[in-house]
Amino acid sequence: MRKRIPFLILVVAACLSGCSANEYGYKIKNHQIVYNTPPRPAGQQSMLGFACDPIEHVRVGLIGIGDRGRNVVKRFPYIDDATVVALCDLLPERIEKAQRSLVKRGAPRAIHEFTGEDGWKQLCESEDIDLVYLAVPWQLHTQMAVYAMEHGKHVAIEVPAATSIEECWALVNTSERTRKHCIMLENCCYDYFELTCLNMAQQGLFGEIVHAEGSYCHNLDPWWDNYAGDWRMTYNREHHGDVYPTHGIGPVCQALDIHRGDKMDMLVSLDTKAFRGQELCDKRYGPGQYDYANGDNTCTIIRTRKGKSILVEHAVVTPRPYSRMYQLTGTKGFANKYPNQGLALGGEDLTGIDSEDLEAEKYMPDALRDSLMTLYQHPITREGGIAEKARKVGGHGGMDFIMDYRLIYCLHHGLPLDMDVYDAAEWSSLVELTEVSILHGSMPVIMPDFTRGEWDKTPGLRFKMAEQ
Amino acid sequence: MRKRIPFLILVVAACLSGCSANEYGYKIKNHQIVYNTPPRPAGQQSMLGFACDPIEHVRVGLIGIGDRGRNVVKRFPYIDDATVVALCDLLPERIEKAQRSLVKRGAPRAIHEFTGEDGWKQLCESEDIDLVYLAVPWQLHTQMAVYAMEHGKHVAIEVPAATSIEECWALVNTSERTRKHCIMLENCCYDYFELTCLNMAQQGLFGEIVHAEGSYCHNLDPWWDNYAGDWRMTYNREHHGDVYPTHGIGPVCQALDIHRGDKMDMLVSLDTKAFRGQELCDKRYGPGQYDYANGDNTCTIIRTRKGKSILVEHAVVTPRPYSRMYQLTGTKGFANKYPNQGLALGGEDLTGIDSEDLEAEKYMPDALRDSLMTLYQHPITREGGIAEKARKVGGHGGMDFIMDYRLIYCLHHGLPLDMDVYDAAEWSSLVELTEVSILHGSMPVIMPDFTRGEWDKTPGLRFKMAEQ
Repeated sequence: MRKRIPFLILVVAACLSGCSANEYGYKIKNHQIVYNTPPRPAGQQSMLGFACDPIEHVRVGLIGIGDRGRNVVKRFPYIDDATVVALCDLLPERIEKAQRSLVKRGAPRAIHEFTGEDGWKQLCESEDIDLVYLAVPWQLHTQMAVYAMEHGKHVAIEVPAATSIEECWALVNTSERTRKHCIMLENCCYDYFELTCLNMAQQGLFGEIVHAEGSYCHNLDPWWDNYAGDWRMTYNREHHGDVYPTHGIGPVCQALDIHRGDKMDMLVSLDTKAFRGQELCDKRYGPGQYDYANGDNTCTIIRTRKGKSILVEHAVVTPRPYSRMYQLTGTKGFANKYPNQGLALGGEDLTGIDSEDLEAEKYMPDALRDSLMTLYQHPITREGGIAEKARKVGGHGGMDFIMDYRLIYCLHHGLPLDMDVYDAAEWSSLVELTEVSILHGSMPVIMPDFTRGEWDKTPGLRFKMAEQ
Repeated sequence: MRKRIPFLILVVAACLSGCSANEYGYKIKNHQIVYNTPPRPAGQQSMLGFACDPIEHVRVGLIGIGDRGRNVVKRFPYIDDATVVALCDLLPERIEKAQRSLVKRGAPRAIHEFTGEDGWKQLCESEDIDLVYLAVPWQLHTQMAVYAMEHGKHVAIEVPAATSIEECWALVNTSERTRKHCIMLENCCYDYFELTCLNMAQQGLFGEIVHAEGSYCHNLDPWWDNYAGDWRMTYNREHHGDVYPTHGIGPVCQALDIHRGDKMDMLVSLDTKAFRGQELCDKRYGPGQYDYANGDNTCTIIRTRKGKSILVEHAVVTPRPYSRMYQLTGTKGFANKYPNQGLALGGEDLTGIDSEDLEAEKYMPDALRDSLMTLYQHPITREGGIAEKARKVGGHGGMDFIMDYRLIYCLHHGLPLDMDVYDAAEWSSLVELTEVSILHGSMPVIMPDFTRGEWDKTPGLRFKMAEQ
């Protein structure tokens, strides 16, 4: 492309060169875009393995009662050891509706109600809140999360937690300085297949996982109007890149022990022209009103420090069946979730199941797959019939409930959370890194190291359980 | 990587810089590897749309009676208007076995038998042969094909037709100079699902196809010993990159009208370390004997001149179910072949079928898919019950037979072949281009233009039929 439209490239290069300026930016070295990893400022400590003192009963303040937030108040009434004590939204009617949701499910009305421009600040400043739960548009996540942590609150943020590298560092630095949890609410890490495969991976059923795939392929046609102020279409209209990478990258990063022994090191990204995107844009705003930036399909390939690879795709305007891909390729076995959940294992290392006839070149029969998945159900969903409760409460088939349950479980018992601030930063960093690669004609990007050299200090990811 | 092992990179850069020297090589410009497209030498003409005079009865000379070749003699007895008249192999016993295969199926014994080091040359030099059919190791394809064309023969080459850009140009230049057909035998273009989807694509059922995927994911564990002199493992041991790209790229390039209105323009490639590959290598040759180069998984993303994208993968050592991916994402519909054949169409533009309830976000029911696929069965397989005959004769489920049948059909009727020398060059060029991208840390590669600027002169791919 750059060969054919050098002028555009000049403009792009010019507008991007600014990034090199600040300490979170990049320089071009040896034909690579190399992001800077600034030294840890004085007074900060690593949050790897961080746990706070047990919180007997977690007081939750919810900011944003839109598409995601209104379901939060439907889930928390079923979670022991936590109560939604504060609600905040720009629209008072949403707050009242949320109160009724709580009461309808046997929970008390939230004590605090905040609205207006500064409502979110007042909520963050309240004394009697332990956890701020952010379900607001992407662009507001970091600013609010930072403010919450600075006011002594742990924070849980919807995905993506940040939309730029500078924001990713703001989350990391603030969490390290304030010693407050900063978790991104990546619910797909808690879906049944992903969670079970994670357990299988940790038990070695796939051998060494050498390649993984994840994606967000979801035609948003029916949903574009749900985003207040048109923020989501606007973001896609103004940006190239994988602007919504975390559902795809999150679960596979866990299976690959990212920053628990390996590190996402380099990526290249490439997108299509906005064929259908421009059609939608013209239909929505009128022909010729805007140029729609984001490609109909964006592919990103990532190489890890240990030499493994990850493929991530983003496609939200083309009509096609939903897919998050979720594929693990190992030296002994293979898992692939879409279009149907498939497991193919070499027959080695399978315990408690007759695996004589299994071969990794064939998907095992559904019945065998199901019994194997029951056998390897992740321990975190075994306690107190949580899996069943999750199915009852619902929320994307239960995964949203398990996510909230685990967050509260770990805070209540004073355990490290399943996902830390570095996961939030690493997974969200793809938003900017993929765009920069694409705007430079798919140039390789050397990713920053949010752990600052500590990516290999933790011997593998393990979700923590309270001692019985 | 280059950041961490600059020395290796220096070595790589040094050994590759040689490529810049010759006219088929590349230069690094604006952080891209830009391949040269040399002007067409005097005395050559474009082979786009080329057809030779009808050949009443095609006399075939087969070189190489190994894994692929021994099946060629099982298929040709069932093809009208063609006879295998010459057989060549280094091993005389293979020739005799092939003769028996012919006779067993009612065909005459081949008139000529050639063996020994120069047998292939003698076959190419024979007067009474029209078509040389090459089923030899990759590394010998181009040398033999060039020699055959220079001796007045049309040539059909197993995949990949070439293993370097220089070889790709040798095929193009020789075909243009000698005015002989040079077709690569990409059998997967003739598989039922691919062929039917191609027809659907040409009828507009998918709308504008914006992204496509293809791959060769096939654990070759059981097959490594079938390659005389260990040539295939040796090639993988010594090379990075997608060394076997054509099964994946071929069918999707046809659906995207590559060099019939669009062009593969730029690619980036990234591979994993050789985890299982090195294991196999150590098991095969003894620990520490060799470093195994090729990654367990190789991902390549390609952008076309029109702004579409293609994903290609190569994985031949990891145990997993076979897959060629074959996925088409259009503005109106979606097709995905593995693990099961799925069609999802918007319901628009479907003729002769009740499509009221169809939506592109759901795979249509199998029964509907099957009736739709019958309705859109590709015209080339309708004539003379060829589809049924193909199923009877077999060869990868019949696609090999349809491929041979079409080759002879077009030669017999004096029609342009379904695939031309530019397809052979473009699809095979990935072998070198992906390796060079990987050896430069996944640097973008601007692909050469084998049509020399004529990629947009043909208004879409159409297989030719004789006038009734």
